[in-house]
Amino acid sequence: MRLPRGLYGITDTGYKAKTHLEAARIFLEGGSRIIQYRRKSGPTREMIEEARAVGRLCRDHGALLIVDDRVDVAVLADADGVHVGAEDAPVDEVRARFGGLIVGASASSVEEAVDGVRRGADYLGAGAVFPSPTKPDYEVLGLDGLRRVVEAVRVPVYAIGGVTLDSVPAIRATGAWGVAVISAVLAADDPVRAAKAFTEAWDG
Amino acid sequence: MRLPRGLYGITDTGYKAKTHLEAARIFLEGGSRIIQYRRKSGPTREMIEEARAVGRLCRDHGALLIVDDRVDVAVLADADGVHVGAEDAPVDEVRARFGGLIVGASASSVEEAVDGVRRGADYLGAGAVFPSPTKPDYEVLGLDGLRRVVEAVRVPVYAIGGVTLDSVPAIRATGAWGVAVISAVLAADDPVRAAKAFTEAWDG
Ligand code: NI
Repeated sequence: MRLPRGLYGITDTGYKAKTHLEAARIFLEGGSRIIQYRRKSGPTREMIEEARAVGRLCRDHGALLIVDDRVDVAVLADADGVHVGAEDAPVDEVRARFGGLIVGASASSVEEAVDGVRRGADYLGAGAVFPSPTKPDYEVLGLDGLRRVVEAVRVPVYAIGGVTLDSVPAIRATGAWGVAVISAVLAADDPVRAAKAFTEAWDG
Repeated sequence: MRLPRGLYGITDTGYKAKTHLEAARIFLEGGSRIIQYRRKSGPTREMIEEARAVGRLCRDHGALLIVDDRVDVAVLADADGVHVGAEDAPVDEVRARFGGLIVGASASSVEEAVDGVRRGADYLGAGAVFPSPTKPDYEVLGLDGLRRVVEAVRVPVYAIGGVTLDSVPAIRATGAWGVAVISAVLAADDPVRAAKAFTEAWDG
């Protein structure tokens, strides 16, 4: 399986999108070919049904669906993969028990990146690349740190955290596989247009 | 696999027990041989680790561990089974995807009981048997309803909802497999003693 380059869209309902499905649609219309369904709470059945709906939309656009944290929802909604962060299930155990899924891991340092890949991660979300006003206490990798992560591992690395349109060329120059974005698209006046701008900035 | 009769203990930290592990210990010391780990929120990794600790204690006492709702936690913590309610993953889909697990379903009527078993439930939690002051809007089965459920299905039926020590003989007389209890044990002055009283009332 080959992971798509460029814009990695993460669903969130905190901005313009009223639902996770609407957030996914914005990213897909904007050219993203990998979507992470990230919903932190709610009844499991509702999450499965919603993730399935997002998955159908992803398939219509030739995109992959990754579910944040919830391996049960990923399996039951027939998602392509799951993304596990530091407080989620351990990468190696998910890999061992749920063989069919793409498994993504988070890394905030070279050490975490190497460890995640050693445990079987298929890709990494590395960050925060830049300081974020909403998450001021996150460790910041910077472009140099991102480059060191990219050079330390052989799997695709998506840059996350404080990513703006202006930073896309510099991020791409590190060898990163793509950029994971939430608010830079979903909080924009015209979110689909913002997503398209990321896609074009990456491709161009 | 044969499900244990008698007291089915459900962990809750809303009463005397400070942790789910402590709640499980109370039920196990009181003679329960089937424990449901029911935690509604928290980081997945913490839930897996906690469920594993509860599972070790269960094995020490020859008891089964069932995880409420979270199939991912059940699999990753090596639990014996999962219990899915109306807002959780559908019984048949869990059965189809997670073959190794015992799957329990909830039923508040004969129709739901028959449907749950048709979808592959290994056992049922049927209730509310009695009105509960904390859940006044729950549909009440009553002893007659419980008996109709028991007669309608071939799987073990645990009675749940408003169960008190005094009601154990009448519940047992319906043909129910056991009684699922939370507050009647965990809110007691001496919870282990209360659990033992349920076990003795059932056996005696
Ligand atoms: Ni003991």
